[in-house]
Amino acid sequence: MTYSPGLKDIVAAETRLSGVDGEAGKLTIAGFPLEEIAERAAYEEMVHLLWHGTLPTAAFLDRFSGELAAYRPISGAILDSLGSAAKERRPVIDTVRMAVASLPTRDDATDARTLVAGLPSIVAAYWRLLHGEEPVEPHPGLDHVANLLYMLTGEILVDNVHGDADGNSGDGGRGDRRGDDGGSGDRRSGDRRDADGGSGDRSGSANGMGRSGGRNGDHVRALTTYLNTVIDHGMNASTFTARVIVSTRSDFISAVTGAIGALKGPLHGGAPGPVLAMLEAIGDAGNAEPHLRRKLETGELLMGFGHAVYRVRDPRADVLSRAASSFFAEDDALYALALHVEKTAIELLEEYKPGRRLHTNVEFYTALLLNGLGLHPDLFTPMFAVGRVGGWVAHCFEQRAVDRLYRPESVYTGDDTGQWIPVNER
Amino acid sequence: MTYSPGLKDIVAAETRLSGVDGEAGKLTIAGFPLEEIAERAAYEEMVHLLWHGTLPTAAFLDRFSGELAAYRPISGAILDSLGSAAKERRPVIDTVRMAVASLPTRDDATDARTLVAGLPSIVAAYWRLLHGEEPVEPHPGLDHVANLLYMLTGEILVDNVHGDADGNSGDGGRGDRRGDDGGSGDRRSGDRRDADGGSGDRSGSANGMGRSGGRNGDHVRALTTYLNTVIDHGMNASTFTARVIVSTRSDFISAVTGAIGALKGPLHGGAPGPVLAMLEAIGDAGNAEPHLRRKLETGELLMGFGHAVYRVRDPRADVLSRAASSFFAEDDALYALALHVEKTAIELLEEYKPGRRLHTNVEFYTALLLNGLGLHPDLFTPMFAVGRVGGWVAHCFEQRAVDRLYRPESVYTGDDTGQWIPVNER
Repeated sequence: MTYSPGLKDIVAAETRLSGVDGEAGKLTIAGFPLEEIAERAAYEEMVHLLWHGTLPTAAFLDRFSGELAAYRPISGAILDSLGSAAKERRPVIDTVRMAVASLPTRDDATDARTLVAGLPSIVAAYWRLLHGEEPVEPHPGLDHVANLLYMLTGEILVDNVHGDADGNSGDGGRGDRRGDDGGSGDRRSGDRRDADGGSGDRSGSANGMGRSGGRNGDHVRALTTYLNTVIDHGMNASTFTARVIVSTRSDFISAVTGAIGALKGPLHGGAPGPVLAMLEAIGDAGNAEPHLRRKLETGELLMGFGHAVYRVRDPRADVLSRAASSFFAEDDALYALALHVEKTAIELLEEYKPGRRLHTNVEFYTALLLNGLGLHPDLFTPMFAVGRVGGWVAHCFEQRAVDRLYRPESVYTGDDTGQWIPVNER
Repeated sequence: MTYSPGLKDIVAAETRLSGVDGEAGKLTIAGFPLEEIAERAAYEEMVHLLWHGTLPTAAFLDRFSGELAAYRPISGAILDSLGSAAKERRPVIDTVRMAVASLPTRDDATDARTLVAGLPSIVAAYWRLLHGEEPVEPHPGLDHVANLLYMLTGEILVDNVHGDADGNSGDGGRGDRRGDDGGSGDRRSGDRRDADGGSGDRSGSANGMGRSGGRNGDHVRALTTYLNTVIDHGMNASTFTARVIVSTRSDFISAVTGAIGALKGPLHGGAPGPVLAMLEAIGDAGNAEPHLRRKLETGELLMGFGHAVYRVRDPRADVLSRAASSFFAEDDALYALALHVEKTAIELLEEYKPGRRLHTNVEFYTALLLNGLGLHPDLFTPMFAVGRVGGWVAHCFEQRAVDRLYRPESVYTGDDTGQWIPVNER
């Protein structure tokens, strides 16, 4: 028997889904280097790649997109429970866990689509209810990520439908494959603040969304790149949770519900706000060095730097920093500050902790990018779940095929000599 | 790096909560041999033992029982969602997972009590709603297990309050420690079919409960012994799930929600019905040998026999078989049949699979006992959860103290040479 606390260096699964090379700073997603694919693919393409091992042809992508669209609307019962939770001001991620746990269990293929399509709808509906707004029905003419932004804001935030703002993709990656769809005219709106006819009466401002109108980038592309970037990452705790649950031959709804519960922990996905808080505390570039020095001298961690696995710059940070540079206007104050803070922090970490190889991690640019998209920090962990669910479900399929129960051992450290004493004699 | 499929022979935790010795057929619960304690303790005492390492004094037990009572009622929002689920005829365990996922997260101590006290209320309320009956509010004068039966049936099923039917306990183990409670008069009812004033209008028959009136034993004691017997069992998949979730510093509600998802899998707790089906298919003692021989000759598994860990008789089967012999009248037809089937099966297993050491497992007597208590097979897995939740939460506390993230490895089996091809060129 082998004991390794936290299962460190214990291999829990073989997987074709993703590979993490912490020394080299490489993340491979189903055969593709992350940076080859994350900035180009539609989220639906990434999910298809993980589930089926190949990027879909146009016909398969159309079919898969249509299947997801069918599972996007959420039931009245779930909306009711979201409404009750909103009245109690329940935390977003707790409510998402509750609502996902309420999804009906059918066969694996259906559950998989229900989860991937339903999670964004749940997050968006709850966010609006929490801010006194009516949920927005999914839009039949919008793809997965455009729908998510639409359901959050009530506005069509699609621009540059025929080309990517970051210049990395020649095919648009989304949106232009369903030209026979009656809603497609809406998708070609060049003004990302334009409300469509069905939501003109909702300003989108009450819930804090839409304050990102000053950015110059493509909102849908930026959010898609984020979701693609976090879609899978080896045997992290939430993915592992999902696999353990499926290993009992339980269902995918149960597995993803468990995974969301693991994700919400601050050691996993549950603490994305502090980077933004740090940037806000620094306020302007001149404060960066003294602020960071003070933290390092009092032994505080620098939020957004260092990773348990990566010994070089987190490849996800690379991708998201490029996404940020496409998305933000050059004169965006927070973005400029973030670049300065990153540079300063790396220099100071090398000065205070030489040889520790502490680099920018995925959280740094996640915070910057999601904030730039107008997303409140309370939505950061739910957005992580919206991205990761494609990977969770892929691992569920993989575990289903393996069909082997996880049954680790435990070592009992107590004795076995207890003798019963009735309560009145204790 | 070590790879062992299913984490076989990998130690995932050190624990003082329970120890399983499969070779010797020994199960130790927090210092006590299972058979020393399961038939004597109240469920509240078992939970206290697991959470605090000692059996409670009378004063502590009173306090703990009172704390649980405070968390027994379930919210209107949860009742509404149970009602919606009942309209859709959702499976019991799925609905329990959903409702547990809806419990509010507060501090660990509160969440722990909310889970242990709330789970029976959720199961009982949903069972009644599923059968067109109004949920029954918890009774302030009844302890944990008596309340569970009361909330299921609307009847007070307490008898022999001052002594145990099986003669193993001198202290009653429950019920007689709250004599100053206004409701205690009800608890002394000698007639277990007697409805109290608050529930006289509910027959308890529509939902299938109460058909066990012909048994001669103490319903509360029998169910308590069952719940105590399954309260903890080393690093099983559901307990492991709970620990992985807590290891991210997530909350206990998330952990137990995940654990329920794992428990529902047929390889864990999700397939308790087949033993009963087998007994019913056999029908009478004369059919037992030909029926079992036919199964063995066609390579079918015998339900209720054999265990992945135990190489001798499962100690839980021992305890539950004694509980059954106290509970059932000697002339109970199904019980008599079960004894005959068990004896025949053991003989035939030795004949067909010599040396395999296949013995009666916990499921055999679980099915018999829960059926004898009038519980429908659809309630078996939920009852398993109602018992196991005390152990899950104990592991949550233990994991919280360890505070180490589970971060196993995975081995990537794919390549990393994929090159982006736009969708229209695929």
